[in-house]
Amino acid sequence: MQPSVAERRPQSFDRVLSSMCTKPHPAARRAAERFLAANPGDPATYETIAELEREAVASLAEVTGLADAVGVDGDTEARGNTGVSENTESHGDIAAHGYVTSGGSESNIQAVRSARERAETADPVVVAPESAHFSFHKAASVLDVELRTVPTDADGRADVDAVAAAVDEDAALVVAVAGSTEYGRVDPIPAMADLAVDAGVPLHVDAAWGGFHLPFSGHDWGFGVDGVETVTIDPHKVGRAAVPAGGLLARDPVALDALAVDTPYLETASQASLTGTRSGAGVASAAAAMDELWPDDYRAEYERASELAAWFAEELRSRGLDVVDPELPLVAFDLSRATFEAVRERGWRLSRTGAGEARVVVMPHVTRGSLSAFLDDLDAPR
Amino acid sequence: MQPSVAERRPQSFDRVLSSMCTKPHPAARRAAERFLAANPGDPATYETIAELEREAVASLAEVTGLADAVGVDGDTEARGNTGVSENTESHGDIAAHGYVTSGGSESNIQAVRSARERAETADPVVVAPESAHFSFHKAASVLDVELRTVPTDADGRADVDAVAAAVDEDAALVVAVAGSTEYGRVDPIPAMADLAVDAGVPLHVDAAWGGFHLPFSGHDWGFGVDGVETVTIDPHKVGRAAVPAGGLLARDPVALDALAVDTPYLETASQASLTGTRSGAGVASAAAAMDELWPDDYRAEYERASELAAWFAEELRSRGLDVVDPELPLVAFDLSRATFEAVRERGWRLSRTGAGEARVVVMPHVTRGSLSAFLDDLDAPR
Repeated sequence: MQPSVAERRPQSFDRVLSSMCTKPHPAARRAAERFLAANPGDPATYETIAELEREAVASLAEVTGLADAVGVDGDTEARGNTGVSENTESHGDIAAHGYVTSGGSESNIQAVRSARERAETADPVVVAPESAHFSFHKAASVLDVELRTVPTDADGRADVDAVAAAVDEDAALVVAVAGSTEYGRVDPIPAMADLAVDAGVPLHVDAAWGGFHLPFSGHDWGFGVDGVETVTIDPHKVGRAAVPAGGLLARDPVALDALAVDTPYLETASQASLTGTRSGAGVASAAAAMDELWPDDYRAEYERASELAAWFAEELRSRGLDVVDPELPLVAFDLSRATFEAVRERGWRLSRTGAGEARVVVMPHVTRGSLSAFLDDLDAPR
Repeated sequence: MQPSVAERRPQSFDRVLSSMCTKPHPAARRAAERFLAANPGDPATYETIAELEREAVASLAEVTGLADAVGVDGDTEARGNTGVSENTESHGDIAAHGYVTSGGSESNIQAVRSARERAETADPVVVAPESAHFSFHKAASVLDVELRTVPTDADGRADVDAVAAAVDEDAALVVAVAGSTEYGRVDPIPAMADLAVDAGVPLHVDAAWGGFHLPFSGHDWGFGVDGVETVTIDPHKVGRAAVPAGGLLARDPVALDALAVDTPYLETASQASLTGTRSGAGVASAAAAMDELWPDDYRAEYERASELAAWFAEELRSRGLDVVDPELPLVAFDLSRATFEAVRERGWRLSRTGAGEARVVVMPHVTRGSLSAFLDDLDAPR
């Protein structure tokens, strides 16, 4: 007999190894629970959550280097904000550069949509490395644009020459990946930005997963790179907000204006988001997580996860397994089909790359203890 | 000095009169809090929430008449389900007919997208009454299809002859509204379905708000009407789930197959949703709310809200105000600009129709007490 709906409990995260979701930070969880019923899609009714969204965007602007790039100190303004109506202008500056989406897929779809709207060609093309997330395929299907994927180099990063060769007069957007879903690879973003600028095409950076590691990893990836026009970064992944909390940021607010649709019955004039009603839980928890964790705790998590990934990779190698050298804390490695099935059978939530490697994403809930237990199961006779 | 993010609290619902969001039912809130970190977008990792999504879809299939129409008793199957892998087939039947979306906008966009994908014309047109929600304008913009809106009759319902006249060989979808956002009007759905069937075009019913009232209101609106091919119905509105929990249902699973995109790195083959990561809170709370409230408590709420709307309309009329006769529990009425501003100033969260009437949506949190207090403020000298 199945337990009733009310009795059902989620499984623990102890054996979740391949997900880019994680347990929200306690402060994020508390904020999510407080704002479960508020709708940031209706800011004239739900003012407090609208205010928290502006703060979340201001924080994201710091994480991605946008605040520095456009010369607005989002954080200071956020703290000094005293309410909506009085203060829209001073705060509006940074808030006009982004919004909290439902996640990376919406952010990527919207970035492509904005590029399509602003393209001067009738047949807009999006040029992306084949490592780009499947949401770009979804975007191409939804938006009826061509997605032109370009093979990556042997290490799984965008091949700049190949990308350059694929950019023609129909190119409306170049996509760079900053932390690929399968291997955690970061594309050579400055070089891609240069070629995008030369071609007069915006560069979109998908840092949905990598965005809260990259400020500490030494990569050039965000709005500090000229030519990066839009960035996807998800608080609900490494940012430790509750789902749904994605982020879309734009260097130029015009990129978001291109998405606006009139909203006749609301006391606000238009709406740029893909969804209508939106989750107050996601927005509040994003604001709370970043308020609590940026930058020191995110840095500490980057360091912890990177060390753990390096250790785990070494443990796998010592067992004779081929391991893709981790760039960000994500370890892909060869594992026979039989062993893969056997560990899934033991409850490990493991998934594979398109090429068949197992992949372990070292999220905040993944510990040395859980990876040791996984290695024990790999070592166990079957 | 602004309180810190952690100290910020949402405003109360006491004065929220125009929103289609409401306080989630306690059982829905508890379920949302339990499943805040589960991702229904990755069913091979998060199996319990995937199971709850199947139950939510089975419940929605009952509410919309789909279970009866396709001869599957969703509820019984849902209760008897013993797990995912063993039981995909018996349960898969009804689960293949829908999914829990982020809300009405995603559902409507996806319904239009599905129709576009299946249309045989190169220039697909969506024919909708001008009362259709702005998400259809968003859908048209996103999906690059033409939205052909048709004036409503004097009562705010679709004019069937005008809709028929607008349907030509490029028509890919006809939209009917079952509970319009501005006036709560229900279109003549059987007549619209007849014309759609005659034209060989699917009919989509947008019951995002009305869907949990309509089973008790005597209207013909759901899959019981031949020709209704897809339905939008939001658990997070009158269904009392937590945001984000929308619903998209299809008579024929082929309508959803048209939306599927490959998901290379997940241990499931494809994904029909517009978003990728999705909210476990929304899905779990939808399942919990419907498990708890369908059908008796929803019927009781329909009756309570309808009586309250009728009383409120009469009270407004007795004050000499013009009132649009309520069909579902939503009351639109003429209010001077000055009075509108004055009551907003007193904290009432009120919004207007495009034509300028004030609109009160009698949601579960709206009580006789709150409406009396509102009337007192209307009566107060300014």
